[in-house]
Amino acid sequence: MSQSAYQELSATWKRLHHFGHLQALAGWDRMAMMPTSGNDARSNAMAEMDGLLHSIRTNPQLKVFLDHAEREALDDAQRANLREIRRDWRTANALPAALVQKQSLANAKCEHAWRTQRPANDWPGFLTNFRQVLKCSREQATFLSNQSGLKPYDALMDYYEPGMTSEKLDVLFGDLLTWLPDLVRKVRVKQAQQNVIAPKGPFSRSAQYALGLEAMRLLGFDFSAGRLDESAHPFCGGVPEDTRLTTRYREDDFVGSLMGTIHETGHGRYEQNLPRNLLGQPVAWARSAGIHESQSLSFEMQIGLSRAFVGLIVPHIVKQFGAQPAFDPDNLYQHLIRVQPSFIRVDADELTYPLHVILRYRIERDLIEGRIEADDIPALWDAAMADFLDVDTRGNYTNGCMQDVHWGEGLFGYFPSYTLGAMYAAQWFAAIRRAVPDLDTQMAAGNLAPALEWLKTNVWEQGSRWTTDELVTRATGSALDPVHYRRHLESRYLA
Amino acid sequence: MSQSAYQELSATWKRLHHFGHLQALAGWDRMAMMPTSGNDARSNAMAEMDGLLHSIRTNPQLKVFLDHAEREALDDAQRANLREIRRDWRTANALPAALVQKQSLANAKCEHAWRTQRPANDWPGFLTNFRQVLKCSREQATFLSNQSGLKPYDALMDYYEPGMTSEKLDVLFGDLLTWLPDLVRKVRVKQAQQNVIAPKGPFSRSAQYALGLEAMRLLGFDFSAGRLDESAHPFCGGVPEDTRLTTRYREDDFVGSLMGTIHETGHGRYEQNLPRNLLGQPVAWARSAGIHESQSLSFEMQIGLSRAFVGLIVPHIVKQFGAQPAFDPDNLYQHLIRVQPSFIRVDADELTYPLHVILRYRIERDLIEGRIEADDIPALWDAAMADFLDVDTRGNYTNGCMQDVHWGEGLFGYFPSYTLGAMYAAQWFAAIRRAVPDLDTQMAAGNLAPALEWLKTNVWEQGSRWTTDELVTRATGSALDPVHYRRHLESRYLA
Repeated sequence: MSQSAYQELSATWKRLHHFGHLQALAGWDRMAMMPTSGNDARSNAMAEMDGLLHSIRTNPQLKVFLDHAEREALDDAQRANLREIRRDWRTANALPAALVQKQSLANAKCEHAWRTQRPANDWPGFLTNFRQVLKCSREQATFLSNQSGLKPYDALMDYYEPGMTSEKLDVLFGDLLTWLPDLVRKVRVKQAQQNVIAPKGPFSRSAQYALGLEAMRLLGFDFSAGRLDESAHPFCGGVPEDTRLTTRYREDDFVGSLMGTIHETGHGRYEQNLPRNLLGQPVAWARSAGIHESQSLSFEMQIGLSRAFVGLIVPHIVKQFGAQPAFDPDNLYQHLIRVQPSFIRVDADELTYPLHVILRYRIERDLIEGRIEADDIPALWDAAMADFLDVDTRGNYTNGCMQDVHWGEGLFGYFPSYTLGAMYAAQWFAAIRRAVPDLDTQMAAGNLAPALEWLKTNVWEQGSRWTTDELVTRATGSALDPVHYRRHLESRYLA
Repeated sequence: MSQSAYQELSATWKRLHHFGHLQALAGWDRMAMMPTSGNDARSNAMAEMDGLLHSIRTNPQLKVFLDHAEREALDDAQRANLREIRRDWRTANALPAALVQKQSLANAKCEHAWRTQRPANDWPGFLTNFRQVLKCSREQATFLSNQSGLKPYDALMDYYEPGMTSEKLDVLFGDLLTWLPDLVRKVRVKQAQQNVIAPKGPFSRSAQYALGLEAMRLLGFDFSAGRLDESAHPFCGGVPEDTRLTTRYREDDFVGSLMGTIHETGHGRYEQNLPRNLLGQPVAWARSAGIHESQSLSFEMQIGLSRAFVGLIVPHIVKQFGAQPAFDPDNLYQHLIRVQPSFIRVDADELTYPLHVILRYRIERDLIEGRIEADDIPALWDAAMADFLDVDTRGNYTNGCMQDVHWGEGLFGYFPSYTLGAMYAAQWFAAIRRAVPDLDTQMAAGNLAPALEWLKTNVWEQGSRWTTDELVTRATGSALDPVHYRRHLESRYLA
């Protein structure tokens, strides 16, 4: 052959990067721009592309190249790229093409119907499509499990969180449940004695949009390579060279759109700062969903909810909405860290959020492992919400088990990444504070660079150069250690 | 084979329709949404897709299917589809893949740089990229010419306007030049005696946007299957199932964005109403660029500029901008049909517009035929603008030869379609008035349905079922006859 086997592989993944660009754009547009009647054509187009991407990844020639490339002289970065190429190849080759296309169509159909079914509280309607989604995801899990030897749910989670297993998660989450509900109770007792003024709306969408842009600028988002738009469910999409964030607006509350925008900005800066020299190659992809969430949560929880950052954002809030007593920085800070069990995960406070995640983790794990069926979801949801959060969701599918788009899209095994991300974020900031002891003073003075540069150097620019454990150990001196997360929460909420 | 040859072909063009959807979306986004730094990645992705589309169209198996399909039992619509499939196949197979990708990259690079070079009046900068664009287009024309036997320029034009030749155009345009400049002079003398009040700005972008949406609603645009956005150069993009229009705003003038939106709505309704039973197959594509422009110009010139429609849109104008003397319907009508030679084609009035087109036609024809070089453009442009319109463009590239995106994008052979479209539009409305003698009374009363339904039945829903000549003859009783165009202009401007 005229090129080395590694070069052949590299050219193939470059091609996948190009086609993936079009697919990512179409996905973003579907959520942020597309009019309703465009959905069938879009789904067909994206399913065709899913089929093409799959056929490229399953070209039998690739196995030959992979075996040859292992024996070629490669530098360390190429060696890491080869490891990640093999991982991507292995996953794709575990799945038959027919399943990939069937699943793409089933997920698109269910997600699209969910948009109207959720506001209509139409669980039976959702169920009709969702049963097919679940069936496909179980088939997918079985194929992946047969190949990897992992349990079916773990095999799905391995997509998003390589190396993580439900066995490890049960330990992490089990530990959380020994102290977190108690912490929530203590904090609520403490906060009940505080007098906090809530901001008074209405807050116009255009002013909220302008405020979001200001926050993104403070946090260093590159607008020459990205945008902010609106969608039903906030997300970070697009490609590293052109990163598309979305948020959503409520005119009676600006905090949701602001904190959502700050959250997505963390995802966005990670994407915008992935290593450029091997861009498009798997070694330059983000490490994992948990590491991705650790960036959005670094922005939202570690920076955004800090007293220092609240001081920085208040002038912009006043500029957009005018002055009001609630915008006193100390008051607003207390308002932002108010703990209040509620229905909606994405609007949940920092302390109750992990309980929403654990609830979902347990249900989706059992769904995939076949221990429960789609019809069982509402009862299990209601019971866990009552148990963990003392919230009554019976009959309220809109704000209960239909609130998230994930399952409707066939996204199983992702939810744990949110709480893993919160744990990693606490660990990053423990390390940053060791390196920069006056971090909070600097942030309060408007200098976010020490924190952002640390993340850039230690996480963003590393891409998938290392396994997750290696990445975390190189950056912080140890693998994931949830003690930092507990310390962070106790120091913020009990201090 | 398990399917008939026709079914194999049909499945291939369905696949092209799906991939073309993603490509069309990426093209729209590039103009309407994409941040600057996203351009390289986008260009690479779209070039990769151009390569794929080309490779599908040049699969050697298709020739076998085409030959077999000719002998299969097909109904009339399938037979017409086979004719159009062959046409599409023939054009693609005339071009080598290397040229297709090289051209895609050269055009994208030149177009993107043009966006900043145009406002900077940077002709030398533009020229650097444009020479490569022209080189590719000449190669393309040569390949197409060798295959079809047409002259190189005619071979390019055949893409957009099958059956049209420069020989025929020289007759049509030559005839135009015998009476149009004289008509312009007469009308200007007549209008110089009228006292017309111009609207006073500023007109906010958001109000202009809202007005544009109202106009689109009046004209029956389906918002569940399309959008209106903003771009540097207005266009109609997307796909029939999801049609994306753009316009551009100037705060000192609302007429440009309004008439531009009405123009694009004509394109948009054509796309939205192409035949649905064979959607995605070539027989369901729009007939030609000239027929497409005949729809946008039916909307803009035949309907939009009619006294009847001005009466309908005025209440919406007043609603958005408040009342002012200029918004008296008779006054506004006179303002809209004001003839004033000017620099910019897309802002030109109905009477001087064809002169802009003839100028471009002659230059691009000679560029492709190798009679002139890229460096010669400004001098030829200046001379023709002085001659046709008495306008001095010397040194003013921004509003001179750099004003249009077409050549920078490698779009040669398209410009004549604008004036052919104006001629067809006049012919449609002559036919509609024969069928509906009280058309203007009905339009004035708010009933646009007779005109719109006629276009829907006779043009939109016909797709590419017939050749252009057949389509026009079936709808109006004769092939293209420019007498209707002259009558229309004389009756509007001299009455």
